[in-house]
Amino acid sequence: MDPESIERKYRRGVFPGRFQPFHLGHLEVVKWALKHVEELAIVIGTAQESHTVVNPFTAGERIIMIRESLKEGNIDLSRILIIPVPDILMNSVWASYLRLFVPEFDVGISRNPLVVRLFKEAGYSVLVPPSFERNKYSSTRIRKMMIAGDDAWRSYVPNAVSRIIDMIDGVKRIREVIGGD
Amino acid sequence: MDPESIERKYRRGVFPGRFQPFHLGHLEVVKWALKHVEELAIVIGTAQESHTVVNPFTAGERIIMIRESLKEGNIDLSRILIIPVPDILMNSVWASYLRLFVPEFDVGISRNPLVVRLFKEAGYSVLVPPSFERNKYSSTRIRKMMIAGDDAWRSYVPNAVSRIIDMIDGVKRIREVIGGD
Amino acid sequence: MDPESIERKYRRGVFPGRFQPFHLGHLEVVKWALKHVEELAIVIGTAQESHTVVNPFTAGERIIMIRESLKEGNIDLSRILIIPVPDILMNSVWASYLRLFVPEFDVGISRNPLVVRLFKEAGYSVLVPPSFERNKYSSTRIRKMMIAGDDAWRSYVPNAVSRIIDMIDGVKRIREVIGGD
Amino acid sequence: MDPESIERKYRRGVFPGRFQPFHLGHLEVVKWALKHVEELAIVIGTAQESHTVVNPFTAGERIIMIRESLKEGNIDLSRILIIPVPDILMNSVWASYLRLFVPEFDVGISRNPLVVRLFKEAGYSVLVPPSFERNKYSSTRIRKMMIAGDDAWRSYVPNAVSRIIDMIDGVKRIREVIGGD
Amino acid sequence: MDPESIERKYRRGVFPGRFQPFHLGHLEVVKWALKHVEELAIVIGTAQESHTVVNPFTAGERIIMIRESLKEGNIDLSRILIIPVPDILMNSVWASYLRLFVPEFDVGISRNPLVVRLFKEAGYSVLVPPSFERNKYSSTRIRKMMIAGDDAWRSYVPNAVSRIIDMIDGVKRIREVIGGD
Amino acid sequence: MDPESIERKYRRGVFPGRFQPFHLGHLEVVKWALKHVEELAIVIGTAQESHTVVNPFTAGERIIMIRESLKEGNIDLSRILIIPVPDILMNSVWASYLRLFVPEFDVGISRNPLVVRLFKEAGYSVLVPPSFERNKYSSTRIRKMMIAGDDAWRSYVPNAVSRIIDMIDGVKRIREVIGGD
Repeated sequence: MDPESIERKYRRGVFPGRFQPFHLGHLEVVKWALKHVEELAIVIGTAQESHTVVNPFTAGERIIMIRESLKEGNIDLSRILIIPVPDILMNSVWASYLRLFVPEFDVGISRNPLVVRLFKEAGYSVLVPPSFERNKYSSTRIRKMMIAGDDAWRSYVPNAVSRIIDMIDGVKRIREVIGGD
Repeated sequence: MDPESIERKYRRGVFPGRFQPFHLGHLEVVKWALKHVEELAIVIGTAQESHTVVNPFTAGERIIMIRESLKEGNIDLSRILIIPVPDILMNSVWASYLRLFVPEFDVGISRNPLVVRLFKEAGYSVLVPPSFERNKYSSTRIRKMMIAGDDAWRSYVPNAVSRIIDMIDGVKRIREVIGGD
Repeated sequence: MDPESIERKYRRGVFPGRFQPFHLGHLEVVKWALKHVEELAIVIGTAQESHTVVNPFTAGERIIMIRESLKEGNIDLSRILIIPVPDILMNSVWASYLRLFVPEFDVGISRNPLVVRLFKEAGYSVLVPPSFERNKYSSTRIRKMMIAGDDAWRSYVPNAVSRIIDMIDGVKRIREVIGGD
Repeated sequence: MDPESIERKYRRGVFPGRFQPFHLGHLEVVKWALKHVEELAIVIGTAQESHTVVNPFTAGERIIMIRESLKEGNIDLSRILIIPVPDILMNSVWASYLRLFVPEFDVGISRNPLVVRLFKEAGYSVLVPPSFERNKYSSTRIRKMMIAGDDAWRSYVPNAVSRIIDMIDGVKRIREVIGGD
Repeated sequence: MDPESIERKYRRGVFPGRFQPFHLGHLEVVKWALKHVEELAIVIGTAQESHTVVNPFTAGERIIMIRESLKEGNIDLSRILIIPVPDILMNSVWASYLRLFVPEFDVGISRNPLVVRLFKEAGYSVLVPPSFERNKYSSTRIRKMMIAGDDAWRSYVPNAVSRIIDMIDGVKRIREVIGGD
Repeated sequence: MDPESIERKYRRGVFPGRFQPFHLGHLEVVKWALKHVEELAIVIGTAQESHTVVNPFTAGERIIMIRESLKEGNIDLSRILIIPVPDILMNSVWASYLRLFVPEFDVGISRNPLVVRLFKEAGYSVLVPPSFERNKYSSTRIRKMMIAGDDAWRSYVPNAVSRIIDMIDGVKRIREVIGGD
C-alpha cells in the first residue's frame, strides 16, 4: 500500500496555469499535489493564444510539453488529466466555467491570490503549494532568457520541454514574435 | 408645481460610467442631470468585468451601490433607471449598441471627450456636467487609497457605498486581485 | 405592519424571462413573488436580440414595458430591479453569469424545468409560481396573434404594454421581421 | 455626358446580401442600382460562414464570383466596392455596424423587409429594386438544384460564377456538407 | 515486438466527435484507430455546450466517460489524449483551429463527409473507419431512448458510461432540458 | 507586352496592415508588389476597431483612403482588392482565417517578422518588400504628429489621405479619443 495515500484527502484537484513554458517549479507543484489528491487536472489556461510574447506556445504544444515532462519524471499518467481551457474574460464566472471543462473536482491548487479567491468564492477548498524557489523558476524569466539569447533557460525546465522547444524551433519563434508586436 | 421642472427640456438622458466605485462626484452629476431630464438612465459600462484592478466590483454590486446611494441622497427612484451594459469593443457602434439596452433617449451626459463625440456622431444632444472637483472625486484615486490601506477613501463615497464595500469585503478583494495580475 | 411580510422569507429573488412581450401572466408572477421575497430582480434574458420573430423587442423597450406595467399595477418599484442580461450560450455557466449582473440573491423564480435545474445545480433555492393560466397567457401566442392581425392580443397584456407597442409601431415591426427571415 | 447620370441622385449605395451564390437576379439589381447611385458597395453578409448548406462558399470565393461577373457584364469596376462583413447577431445594431465597414453611404438597396426596416430605423433612404423574376433567380433554388444534381442551375448564374464553382469543385462541396450536418 | 505496429504508419491521429454520450461504436473506432496511429487524440467538440437536448453532458463529464470507458476496455492510456475543444463556427478555419489545441498530428479520423473534407482541404490524410453498425450505435438514438424512458440505451454504451450517467442523474437532466427548450 | 510582367511570378498576393492611416511607404509597397503579383489583395486588419489612439479610423474610411490614393497614384484598380478583416485574436489560426476572406492567394507580402512567420507556418511563400524609409513613413509617427498639432504629417501621406482626413475632421477625432482613454 502506498504510504503517501494517507495524506490524499481530496478526490480530484485542479492546478491551473498558462505554462509558457512548463518548468521545474511546475513539476514540483504537480508532485506535491499528487500527495494530496487522488487525481490531478492540470488546466492549461489562455489556450486560444499563441505566437505572442507572453504566450508563445500553442495549447497543443503545451499539452505535449507537460505530458512528456511527467513521463520523464516518472509520474503516473493515469492520475493526471491535462485540459486546455480558453479564456472567458469574466473573472467572477471563471470557476463555474472551469467546471464545464473539468470533471467534478473538490480542491483548487494555486499560489496566485486572485485564483485562490475565485476558487474560494465558488465554494472550493484550496491548497496553496510551497514556493519551490519561485524567483528562480519563473516562466517570465525563462522567456526573457530565450529572447536575450541566454541558453541558461534550459536548466530551469525538464529535458522534455527543452527538447520540444528545439523541435518546434521555439526560441526563434519567440524572437520573431517580439519583432511583430 | 416643481420649479425646477422648467429647466427639464429632455425626456430621457443617459449617464454612462464604470462606477468602480460610485462616488460623491457621480452623485453630484446625477443630481445635476435630474434638473435637465425627466428620467435618467445610469448605464453601468464594462458590466462583464470584475475582480480586476480597474474593475474590482461586479455589475450587480455596482447596481446596488448606486441604488442605495440614491436612496440615501433622497433621489426619486421613479425617475432613475440603472442598466448594466457589457463592452462591445467597437467604438463606432457603441451608441447604437447602447440604444439596444436603454429605452429611447434624447440626450447623453458625460465629460469624457470620446463619449461626447460618440453620442454626437450618433446624432444625440450632449450635456456636459460641471467638474464637481474631479481631481478629488475619482474612482482611480479611491481604488489607489484602498490598495494603499488609506481609509480616507470613505470620505469620497456615499455612506451606502462604504457600507456595501465592507459587506462584500471589497478592500481585501482589490488587494488580492493585484497580487494575481 | 404588513401582514404579508410574514411570508417573505427570502431577501432577494430572481425572475428570469425574455418577456417578448411582458403579459398579464408575468404580472401575476411578479405579484406572487413579492409575497415571498423582499426584493425582486426581473432579469430580461436574450437582451442582445431584437427584430426577430421570437425576440421582436429590444431590451430597452422591454425594460420600459415592464416598468410601466408595474406602475399601472400599483407595484412598489422600490422593491423591484429590472436587469437586462445578454445570452451566454453555456447553460452550465448561466447561474454564475447571472450572479455577475444581479445583486446577491437567495432564490430563483421560474416554472421552466431547465431554469429550475440550473438554479438548483448552482445551489439556489427555487420557488415555482402557480401556472396563472399559462395556455392563455403566452408570449408566443401573443406574437402569433399580432402576426395574424388578431387584435385580441391586447386583452392578454397590461395596458401599458399595448400602449408602448403602438408607440413603437411594434405590430408592423414583427410582421416585417417575418418577411426578412 | 452620361445621360443616365441624371437619375443618379445618391452618392453611395449599399446592397447587402449573402450571394450564395451570386446569380443573374443579383446582377440585374447591380445594374439597376448603378442608375441611381454614383458608387455601389456590395456587402457580402455572413462573411464568416462557409461549408454549410445555406452558406457553402467562403467570403473570398464570393468576392471573386461577384468581381468576375461584373467584369463579364461590362460593369465599371471603379464604381463598385465589394466588402465582406461578418454577422453581428444584433439586428438593431446592424446598420451602425455596417457603417463601420463601408465608406459613408446615403442609401440602402434591398427588397428584404427586415433589411429595409433596419436601414430606415437608422435614418437611411432605401431604394427597393424591381423583383427581376425573383422566383426564378433564387440562391436557395440554385443550391437545391446543385444538391439534386440538376445542371440547370448554370443557366441562372453568370458564366463566371459557373466557371468558379467548377474550379473550386463547389457542387461536390455542397453535397458533402449536407452529409455532415 | 507488437505485431500490430507494422500497420501503424501515422504518428498521431485526431478523432473528433461530440460524444453525447460516448458509445460502443465510438469505442470500436478508437480500437481500430490505434492499429493505424501511434497516438490518438480524441477531440471532444462543442465543448462549451451542455444541458441542451443535443448536448446534455459537459465536456468534463464527457472526458471522464471516455477515460473510464477506455480503462474498462483495457486500452493503453499512454497512447491517448482526450482534448475538449469549443466550437469556432467558421468551418473553413476549423482544421487550423484544431491544430491550436492538439499536438502536431498527421491524420484525421472520421466518417463524417464534412469533417473528412475539412481535414483534406487543410492538407491532412484521412482514415475512414468501418461503420461498426452505425444505425445501432448512435448517440442520437441513445438520447431518444433516455427521453422515452427506454432503459435499453445501457446496452449500447460501455458500463462506465452507464455508471457515470447514473451518478450525475443524467437521464433526469436530459428530460428536464427538453421541458425548458 | 508589359515588360514588367516577366517578374510577376505569383498569381495573387496578400498585403496585410492596419493602415492607420495609409501613407506613402504603404503606397511604395503596393507599387513594388504589383511587379511581383498579377493581383494584390490589400487586407485592412483590426477592421472592427476605430476611435482609439492606435486605430482612429474605421475600416470604411480606410478603404476609401486606400482606394483614392491608388487612383491618385495611377494604379490599375482592376488588379487590386481591398478587403477589411476583423481581428481573430488567435495568431496560429490567422492565416487560415485570412483565407476565409481573401480569394485564393499564393504569396504573402510583409516586413513584419510575426506576419512573415504566420504566412510561412501556413505554407505560403512570402515576399519581403524593401524598407522604403520606414523610420520616416510610419503610421505611429504620423498619428503622433496629428496629436502634437504638427501639420507636417501631410507630407508623409498621399494627398487623397490628407483630403479625406480633413473631410472627416480626423485630426480632431484623434485628439478627442486621447482625452477619453
